[in-house]
Amino acid sequence: MSVHSDFRSGHHFRAAIISQGDEIVLGQTLDTNSKWLADQLLARGITPVEQVSLPDDVPAITAAFRRLSASVDLILCTGGLGPTADDLTREALAAAEGDTLVEDPAALAQIERWFKDRGRPMPVINRVQAMRPRSATTIENFHGTAPGIQARVGGADVFCMPGPPRELFPMFEEQVAFLLRPPTARSVRTLALHIVGLGESDVATSLSKAPGGDMMARERVPLVGTTASGGVVTARIRYEGPLPASDADALVRRTADQVRSLLGAHVFAENGTPHEELPAAVIEALRERGRTLAVVESCTAGLLGSMIGDIPGASGVFLGGVITYANALKSSLAGVPAAIFEGPASPGSVSFECASAMAIGGLRATGATDCLSITGIAGPGGATPTKPVGTVFIALATSGTTGVTVDARRFNMAGDRRSVREWSARAAMAMLWMRMSGAPETRLLREVDRRASEQCEQ
Amino acid sequence: MSVHSDFRSGHHFRAAIISQGDEIVLGQTLDTNSKWLADQLLARGITPVEQVSLPDDVPAITAAFRRLSASVDLILCTGGLGPTADDLTREALAAAEGDTLVEDPAALAQIERWFKDRGRPMPVINRVQAMRPRSATTIENFHGTAPGIQARVGGADVFCMPGPPRELFPMFEEQVAFLLRPPTARSVRTLALHIVGLGESDVATSLSKAPGGDMMARERVPLVGTTASGGVVTARIRYEGPLPASDADALVRRTADQVRSLLGAHVFAENGTPHEELPAAVIEALRERGRTLAVVESCTAGLLGSMIGDIPGASGVFLGGVITYANALKSSLAGVPAAIFEGPASPGSVSFECASAMAIGGLRATGATDCLSITGIAGPGGATPTKPVGTVFIALATSGTTGVTVDARRFNMAGDRRSVREWSARAAMAMLWMRMSGAPETRLLREVDRRASEQCEQ
Repeated sequence: MSVHSDFRSGHHFRAAIISQGDEIVLGQTLDTNSKWLADQLLARGITPVEQVSLPDDVPAITAAFRRLSASVDLILCTGGLGPTADDLTREALAAAEGDTLVEDPAALAQIERWFKDRGRPMPVINRVQAMRPRSATTIENFHGTAPGIQARVGGADVFCMPGPPRELFPMFEEQVAFLLRPPTARSVRTLALHIVGLGESDVATSLSKAPGGDMMARERVPLVGTTASGGVVTARIRYEGPLPASDADALVRRTADQVRSLLGAHVFAENGTPHEELPAAVIEALRERGRTLAVVESCTAGLLGSMIGDIPGASGVFLGGVITYANALKSSLAGVPAAIFEGPASPGSVSFECASAMAIGGLRATGATDCLSITGIAGPGGATPTKPVGTVFIALATSGTTGVTVDARRFNMAGDRRSVREWSARAAMAMLWMRMSGAPETRLLREVDRRASEQCEQ
Repeated sequence: MSVHSDFRSGHHFRAAIISQGDEIVLGQTLDTNSKWLADQLLARGITPVEQVSLPDDVPAITAAFRRLSASVDLILCTGGLGPTADDLTREALAAAEGDTLVEDPAALAQIERWFKDRGRPMPVINRVQAMRPRSATTIENFHGTAPGIQARVGGADVFCMPGPPRELFPMFEEQVAFLLRPPTARSVRTLALHIVGLGESDVATSLSKAPGGDMMARERVPLVGTTASGGVVTARIRYEGPLPASDADALVRRTADQVRSLLGAHVFAENGTPHEELPAAVIEALRERGRTLAVVESCTAGLLGSMIGDIPGASGVFLGGVITYANALKSSLAGVPAAIFEGPASPGSVSFECASAMAIGGLRATGATDCLSITGIAGPGGATPTKPVGTVFIALATSGTTGVTVDARRFNMAGDRRSVREWSARAAMAMLWMRMSGAPETRLLREVDRRASEQCEQ
């Protein structure tokens, strides 16, 4: 960590971001500014090392400026620059600097002009927005009445900016960003690979056993980490160091290729590409192959169709389908033989037989080339001794030149009703993705059994 | 501020929230957990005074635990409890306590059972999730493999919980919340009324013109505020002060009754009741009346069915329906006459005529007593000069003793594709709610036109 005693000297290596306001700390407003600023800094090669949200309280804000200025080179602060009694960033900044507040004539003129341009007199309370610490400078706000403030506290350059995104974003991009001094000798490059059908620990285990050594070692360059969200595991690759950008890019790409070679068809997208979400990747794969999709949904009740319909342009590939929540509709709309539900020895509506019949029926009812069906027990009711909550059967019927292939699998999904339903819809898309990728035999996360694919006369 | 030296003694006045993970500090993931936890604390009378996001770095996390434990009574931490090398909360917590990590046999047994229940062997790397500081205790995770940890650092009680919301939310609500000790000398009572079919400014205008005076005045006791999310406006009533709990409850109830008398059938639920969500309230209203529901969805592609199927026990009322994304399926599965789409003078698939035919066809195809249909232009493509993006037709066909009544409405939804689809599904439920509440004539938010209900021979 490097501390600079002179303004405009040295580089900004490490940054902290402060967001200011009771409404944020108390949980009434979601702070999205800090993520945006962190993203902006990282893209410029400056590493954010802390984000902190504080209440409208001068001692708390003052203490944060002082504490952070001892360990970072750069502090970005949003909010607390308004005209009311709970806007305290100006006072806290002066206190942290051991400085006094003065009125900035140029800032006052700008605020007065802002109101004049809008045909209104400046309310008295807005005058306070022209105040700044004596040693600081103001940053003109072209999108509101709150000027920004540029100051120096201890070893850190501080930029205080207004909280409303439509004022913050242009002030940062047009007036603050060019004042930043990223480490010229450092590059920061990131890449994320999205992975389906494997758990986070499966991914970590594969990466840690890479032929060239543990890819998740904390000292590896570039660094590889994993996160999981909604059934998708993301492997994040990050390079930070002295290499020129093009060499850093090549290094990150080589690591990405290693991850791809270890995880194969499980990798469905990279971040920043047009089909980054799984449903979009599936739709695109179908489109490239000239195929069409239908769904027959029981326990998910339309969730799978909705995830697909959420993708712009899905209509080129997705025809629709049937929601067969009641068994009567499984028969009348998807052609499932009543014998599957009726009688003591029948397999029942949550079975390989029912899922397969639903998928085949969906092909017939819609004319699609591919049909996904889902039937299961989402809970909390409906469980039986052999079929606990989370038991879900998913089938994929695929129409080919010789007939229809059906791939039916049994899953044991975890969690509550919502979770079972979401995992089911995502597992269905994962099955289709794996088939499109030429790896239909791959066992998926939470899969416990399957019926070997069958050929039926079409 | 009060600092307690003994675990389980004293109250929790001030809290800090730590969110843990490179992906958050670097701006790759938006942290929504901290806002949620702050909201939960405030509702229980504990004041959050700082939220901080930190990288996967043991010294940084350790320093934060130590610093915060000197100024707050309670620290909630999320993330960093996974099985991989970048999950470092356990180590940092032990370092902050000056303690060593030990393996917790009960936690290990739980993790092993988690995998066994899912028919998979426990990967070796998950074993680390059973580690905890020697003086700490683990909190069982019923929704994932990461146990939580309860510990004491300096003057603060610390609860470390997993980052994924579907693991965090239930762990906090079911296993952590009851261990919190809010200050007892004050009552904090809140009540929320959920409102459908009105905009936030409509609600605010009604409440500000209440006969007894402006209900939204900032000095009013109890305070009334409004928030809007996903088409539902919530009026939040909040009392905080010296009254005993029972008197505070009575005061809050009186205000709630005033809100109800001003807004009538638009109020569909109170928070904390079994049917708090609109789909649940609709399902319950149908059940009470012995009715059954089907859906026919075009642009929403299953979203409406999915929202209904998300409600436990929906199967008593919800039969299913049809996703008619392609026009061919509108005809073949919902019986919409082809003349509605074909020919230059035809009304087209986004029209009163098509929505009405879809709803009537849905009744016939499923045998339900009520059917909701949705057809519209979700964008970004598909707009015409007379039908811009956001044009959505929703019809409700209701079967009665004399035939079928159809109520069809045109809406102008705002926002992007996702937003148009979500507003459409919610507007459909609002139409059904208003009919069940005996106020079917009420004009809904974003409604621009309607076709007078018709009687058809059944």
